[in-house]
Amino acid sequence: MSDLALAENLGGEIALYDIDRVAAERNKKIGGFINKNPKTKSKFDYKVYDKLEAALDGATFVVISILPATFKEMRSDVHAPEKYGIYQAVGDTAGPGGVLRAMRTVPVYEDFARKIKDICPTAWVINFTNPMSICTKVLYDVFPGIKAFGCCHEVFHAQEFLTCVLKETRGIKPRRDEIYTDACGVNHFTWITEAKYGDTDILSLIPEFEAKFFEEGYYEYEPRFAFKTDPFAYGNKVKMDLFNKYGALAAAGDRHLAEFMPNTWYLKDEATVEEWKFRLTTVDFREKQQAEKITETIEMAEGRKQFPVVKSAEVAVELMQAILGFGSYVSNVNMPNVGQMPQMPLGSIVETNCVFSHDSVKPIVAKPLPTAVKNLVYRACVNIDTLYEGIKERDLNKIYVAFANQALCGTLTMEQSKNLFKEMCYNTREYLDEYFDLDGYFN
Amino acid sequence: MSDLALAENLGGEIALYDIDRVAAERNKKIGGFINKNPKTKSKFDYKVYDKLEAALDGATFVVISILPATFKEMRSDVHAPEKYGIYQAVGDTAGPGGVLRAMRTVPVYEDFARKIKDICPTAWVINFTNPMSICTKVLYDVFPGIKAFGCCHEVFHAQEFLTCVLKETRGIKPRRDEIYTDACGVNHFTWITEAKYGDTDILSLIPEFEAKFFEEGYYEYEPRFAFKTDPFAYGNKVKMDLFNKYGALAAAGDRHLAEFMPNTWYLKDEATVEEWKFRLTTVDFREKQQAEKITETIEMAEGRKQFPVVKSAEVAVELMQAILGFGSYVSNVNMPNVGQMPQMPLGSIVETNCVFSHDSVKPIVAKPLPTAVKNLVYRACVNIDTLYEGIKERDLNKIYVAFANQALCGTLTMEQSKNLFKEMCYNTREYLDEYFDLDGYFN
Amino acid sequence: MSDLALAENLGGEIALYDIDRVAAERNKKIGGFINKNPKTKSKFDYKVYDKLEAALDGATFVVISILPATFKEMRSDVHAPEKYGIYQAVGDTAGPGGVLRAMRTVPVYEDFARKIKDICPTAWVINFTNPMSICTKVLYDVFPGIKAFGCCHEVFHAQEFLTCVLKETRGIKPRRDEIYTDACGVNHFTWITEAKYGDTDILSLIPEFEAKFFEEGYYEYEPRFAFKTDPFAYGNKVKMDLFNKYGALAAAGDRHLAEFMPNTWYLKDEATVEEWKFRLTTVDFREKQQAEKITETIEMAEGRKQFPVVKSAEVAVELMQAILGFGSYVSNVNMPNVGQMPQMPLGSIVETNCVFSHDSVKPIVAKPLPTAVKNLVYRACVNIDTLYEGIKERDLNKIYVAFANQALCGTLTMEQSKNLFKEMCYNTREYLDEYFDLDGYFN
Amino acid sequence: MSDLALAENLGGEIALYDIDRVAAERNKKIGGFINKNPKTKSKFDYKVYDKLEAALDGATFVVISILPATFKEMRSDVHAPEKYGIYQAVGDTAGPGGVLRAMRTVPVYEDFARKIKDICPTAWVINFTNPMSICTKVLYDVFPGIKAFGCCHEVFHAQEFLTCVLKETRGIKPRRDEIYTDACGVNHFTWITEAKYGDTDILSLIPEFEAKFFEEGYYEYEPRFAFKTDPFAYGNKVKMDLFNKYGALAAAGDRHLAEFMPNTWYLKDEATVEEWKFRLTTVDFREKQQAEKITETIEMAEGRKQFPVVKSAEVAVELMQAILGFGSYVSNVNMPNVGQMPQMPLGSIVETNCVFSHDSVKPIVAKPLPTAVKNLVYRACVNIDTLYEGIKERDLNKIYVAFANQALCGTLTMEQSKNLFKEMCYNTREYLDEYFDLDGYFN
Repeated sequence: MSDLALAENLGGEIALYDIDRVAAERNKKIGGFINKNPKTKSKFDYKVYDKLEAALDGATFVVISILPATFKEMRSDVHAPEKYGIYQAVGDTAGPGGVLRAMRTVPVYEDFARKIKDICPTAWVINFTNPMSICTKVLYDVFPGIKAFGCCHEVFHAQEFLTCVLKETRGIKPRRDEIYTDACGVNHFTWITEAKYGDTDILSLIPEFEAKFFEEGYYEYEPRFAFKTDPFAYGNKVKMDLFNKYGALAAAGDRHLAEFMPNTWYLKDEATVEEWKFRLTTVDFREKQQAEKITETIEMAEGRKQFPVVKSAEVAVELMQAILGFGSYVSNVNMPNVGQMPQMPLGSIVETNCVFSHDSVKPIVAKPLPTAVKNLVYRACVNIDTLYEGIKERDLNKIYVAFANQALCGTLTMEQSKNLFKEMCYNTREYLDEYFDLDGYFN
Repeated sequence: MSDLALAENLGGEIALYDIDRVAAERNKKIGGFINKNPKTKSKFDYKVYDKLEAALDGATFVVISILPATFKEMRSDVHAPEKYGIYQAVGDTAGPGGVLRAMRTVPVYEDFARKIKDICPTAWVINFTNPMSICTKVLYDVFPGIKAFGCCHEVFHAQEFLTCVLKETRGIKPRRDEIYTDACGVNHFTWITEAKYGDTDILSLIPEFEAKFFEEGYYEYEPRFAFKTDPFAYGNKVKMDLFNKYGALAAAGDRHLAEFMPNTWYLKDEATVEEWKFRLTTVDFREKQQAEKITETIEMAEGRKQFPVVKSAEVAVELMQAILGFGSYVSNVNMPNVGQMPQMPLGSIVETNCVFSHDSVKPIVAKPLPTAVKNLVYRACVNIDTLYEGIKERDLNKIYVAFANQALCGTLTMEQSKNLFKEMCYNTREYLDEYFDLDGYFN
Repeated sequence: MSDLALAENLGGEIALYDIDRVAAERNKKIGGFINKNPKTKSKFDYKVYDKLEAALDGATFVVISILPATFKEMRSDVHAPEKYGIYQAVGDTAGPGGVLRAMRTVPVYEDFARKIKDICPTAWVINFTNPMSICTKVLYDVFPGIKAFGCCHEVFHAQEFLTCVLKETRGIKPRRDEIYTDACGVNHFTWITEAKYGDTDILSLIPEFEAKFFEEGYYEYEPRFAFKTDPFAYGNKVKMDLFNKYGALAAAGDRHLAEFMPNTWYLKDEATVEEWKFRLTTVDFREKQQAEKITETIEMAEGRKQFPVVKSAEVAVELMQAILGFGSYVSNVNMPNVGQMPQMPLGSIVETNCVFSHDSVKPIVAKPLPTAVKNLVYRACVNIDTLYEGIKERDLNKIYVAFANQALCGTLTMEQSKNLFKEMCYNTREYLDEYFDLDGYFN
Repeated sequence: MSDLALAENLGGEIALYDIDRVAAERNKKIGGFINKNPKTKSKFDYKVYDKLEAALDGATFVVISILPATFKEMRSDVHAPEKYGIYQAVGDTAGPGGVLRAMRTVPVYEDFARKIKDICPTAWVINFTNPMSICTKVLYDVFPGIKAFGCCHEVFHAQEFLTCVLKETRGIKPRRDEIYTDACGVNHFTWITEAKYGDTDILSLIPEFEAKFFEEGYYEYEPRFAFKTDPFAYGNKVKMDLFNKYGALAAAGDRHLAEFMPNTWYLKDEATVEEWKFRLTTVDFREKQQAEKITETIEMAEGRKQFPVVKSAEVAVELMQAILGFGSYVSNVNMPNVGQMPQMPLGSIVETNCVFSHDSVKPIVAKPLPTAVKNLVYRACVNIDTLYEGIKERDLNKIYVAFANQALCGTLTMEQSKNLFKEMCYNTREYLDEYFDLDGYFN
């Protein structure tokens, strides 16, 4: 909302829809304060809707960010696998947690896609929900004519990291949008195969950078060892280790990257995680954080605290402006593969650079991944395709096959993976029974 | 040179090499005047070299624009086919003229590519020479590691045309770089499959536009019927007719487009050409024009006439700036197909939008062409591949096969096409004998 | 019917359906005679059906061979273009005749496909109707799960020709099924890129063969100059000429091949045709021949003449036997491209070798075509795709675009091609009005 | 040698070359006995050569079957990983053993390929050496014009299994070459996606079959529980379990299949292996078996024991006959992907059905694999490509990356996989030092 307010040339209505109407009302009130803020350049009518259909009606953009279910289910996603020796730093994309979250989210997105098709088929749909790839896949599968993409800032962190590489090795510190990177892969597991500042090849500077920083890690935003207190911080040590092995730069936070590799590598146990300079984000922590955020939002909505109208690091508004015809913009988003990654199957959701311009988002052909990286990304990519097939067909066996083939599940016996899958399904059955016949499959 | 002078952030040496050293010296002198011009923002050292090798040494950019042979050969290219009923408006790309010109130019480019490989392998090579596609192909074939692209402004005219469509139907007149177009194809035969201004679909306005302008043609720059006096002017009537038939907008000047269609369509004879509101550019005219230009250049070099330091419509300097790291830029250029046109063979030279940024040019995946257009473009594209194979292998039979399959040669009997090919080869043998065994093949 | 009778292991019912019921009854009677013939190994119940649906019910194989409309329409297809200088030797595949015939045939095949889907979805469908490619395309487009292929014997003639090359240059004369050929392309325009007898490369012998036979032509079955009296005979001179130009062997009868090349090459006029040692097959001749055949069939059905139970040169029965599980068999048929011709679009109908075995027909990956041939075949292939799109969408403008892009129409002005198309449509409107709005388009 | 002797139409010289000349001499003597055997139809001159070059000279076929190094190295390949919890049933293809074996074998094959290119470039090369895929890859990479394929009988066992499925569920027992199967994948990890006998879909019968036999396993050749005493026997239980999960039939012996899945699944420990009804083949056993075979060979060579001239289950001689022009033959072999598996990278070595005929081997386009299977096969396929790149470039880091990504290594920490790799390299350094700088990499 800040970003929208600070952007020029925009206006119109922001239709708020939330299954928690109170939350939507709070946002509306905050919107009112934003409109009065002197920094605000674009004012909007904030309006709360009771029905999704009404909110969609006449939309130019549809922005979706949801989290189906509660912390109870998230707790199962993230922590249930621990007794099987599977630790997840995030648990929302790959690994057992990602699979279960997809099972709850995909059916909701099927409904979104159908409604968008019926009500606002020409609107641009911006997805922020994880698991990103599979949510984007549903939208296109149910409504092939949709204009949708998935937005994620993880690559930005890797770009920030690269500017630090420049700073530490060459004494130059450009902004992240002043360097060029060719990133491709699947969401949270993209790889930068080329990074340039002028004609300086930044990737080639990484060995020099690592000689100084590999041991203790490097924190582009935070103090050294920030990961010890901040569960979102990390020292980029996983990223550097992957670079040493694979010769390309994995472009997401280390917490995400680790979840695409064997669970014996960076996530073996808490000690290993600490050694790699990041931390497992617990659901306790998330719950506490969420409560604080809501309190803060209430204070803002009630005018007891000022809503800070400042530009965020996200670029969704820049993308919107380009789509509306104000200049063109290049950024990485998630879209179906139409040739931008010739190494991946056509139709799979991939994340690459795209050009945003008047009512158009066009993928840029990515540089090929090195053979070994191609293999890792393909596995992650087709795991999503298998998982999607399984959820679409409500076929628990197929979902299980995708579950068992997660890199994080590599140490499980078949019996263990089946048991864990079962346990996680039953833990969250409140949100699954409508779609899946758990008893029929597991008994 | 004007564009370079008016750009910011640039500098260094401009190494001039010309087989006509006097011409290079003239340019150097003009360069001196430009440096003194008060509008000039970036000054360069203009230096003339006797040897290509010396000029290439240390280059950041290599800009190539040559015209092998003389007006005598061009006269054969353009006019020899006329007695066989083949009229060419340009004669430098497709058709008999394009084939012969390629035969003279490719061997020269083979040499360029080898020298660039040896002397300045990391330089960016910008090609302006026609036939564009085949020149770009030689560079990549001889030196696959080259960083090269071919630049052509023809698509810009179609974009200009589209802004006029907006003006005439909606009363809006944006600049051509304020609209978005998805153009793809082969050089001088690209097609715009999508054109947007905000979310306005400009292509959908063309029927309304045609209702007013089809009959008499539409001249975006010049007065009505300009083609009658200006052999470069045209009324876009060919373009409109192709749009009616194929549903996409052919994006080059009508004079070029006509040469990719059967010679019975728009180039049957001078009367037909007139009916379609364009004109055949004669070599007499070109010769005269060239003489005038040289005279003018001499006057400028000698300081008798002022060299106007004004921005041209070309964007090569914008591309260079982006490559040097000053922002990113989207424009259409010619490069090997690595997936940007999944409908064309990999490795063929295609023209699509590309993103220019720090030391990098990346193609954007183009929207698929309609089936019938795909067929036309494929034919043109693979004709170039066949022709290139023939020239590379010095195989006159293969060249003849490509010659005979030109759309413009469709009315020739085999005997006629063989005779015409022979005649054109012998007319220009001074520039061919070094590479091809004409007598061995034709006798 | 002879082939079926002479095959072993077969039996069951032959369900005869013909819009001319009398013809079906005649065939039934002939079937009865065949069953009594001492040479017959497999007997069948011949049964005539009034309704297509009933005939399809329970089918294992569906064999389709139809000729929509009458000699009147065929006369227009073949001869109407002549006054525009377009001569067709066959007129049923490419060229103006092929387009019109497709317009009449495709709607009938749409109905076949729907009925097969409903009534006998697991039956194997063998198509003999021309235009072969587009008929096969309809079947798969309307019912993607169909098991269908198109059968054509034209490649066999080229194989026969190759055995003659062996005979005349090496003194060996194997049967055509004793040599190996890799043929691929579109129906009636396939090309043999490899031909082996043991490790003898037969294609490499063609120059030696041509030295003896190019001038006067070579007739593998008939006496020298047979084409002068037999309108189906030809001297393979077109084939040899194409080999000289393209380095691969076009694998269909010369009468068909000529129709895929510019009309100025082999079909300029009757004198040219004669020079190339083949003849235009007139509809008068076909009508006469047809009348004779019917008379003969009546005599056979009435028992006044014996039906000769002899093995034909066709292999459909061998294919059926393989599909039924009696051994495997390799032959060229027409199927959708799933990768057997990586140079052609996926989903286009292509003709390549396939392996027939138990309930399965699998395409063999063909050797790539030489660049120049690839270009010719692609054009023919995508012309069919464009034509099919046009007919499917009942879009006369799109059909016209495909019409005008036929190689045989290369000499026509736009006005001529439009007039010819109009004339041919109106000539045959009795069979078109149900599907196309002729008046709306042409007026 | 028996198969050759029993085949018709063959003859000529069999050039024997072995680095152990004594072994070659023994084979020559046995050849002499075969020639005298009354069953023998084709006699050959058996001749021993001292130099590979001399043996290759003039060859029509080159048959390669080697085992670089000794049982000492094989012992390391198979058993060294055990203390890390990695058990291998074979250890010659995938897993740690396969990687080390490839490191020893690829350099030898590089030499073979160069010699074949120089001495007998038109010979057909039949490879029997494991790891099959990578050996075939070397041949084509070093000499792209080679005519080579890799032959393996593992799919035959799966076909035999399918005939048993027919027998046990339908009471029919055809020979394995009387059914049709579409198998594709990489060697020892191919999958049957379609299996037909007439129009009976054999795969659909497997559930019924499993109801009877899953528990105790099914032994197509041997008595129940044969695996307890015969380390090559297996109960197909792995195969059936994979079928239940993936819906396609993995088509190799269970001992091989297990090595492509996580080591926690079928190879966790000896108890698990027993549960899945197969056995780990120890190198002790192999050593003993080899000694017995040599003793037997000596007896045969010295005439003390008769060499049994009986047809084997292999089809290499059938393939040779087809290549020589005696009929055509369909069988599965390993060749570079030219489109037969559109889901796998072009140029990777894949195993699919191919058609063998006169001097020609052509791959058949395989039916697509189910999504989840595609993912498993792709991983195995690209692991081989990565491994090959590493060996070719003598890059131990790249080899390690391929090593660590083996499915069997999924439970290893990075430290463990590095240590195991190091240990296995040093154990076998006698055969590696010539090519790899072990000390430089590991220290």
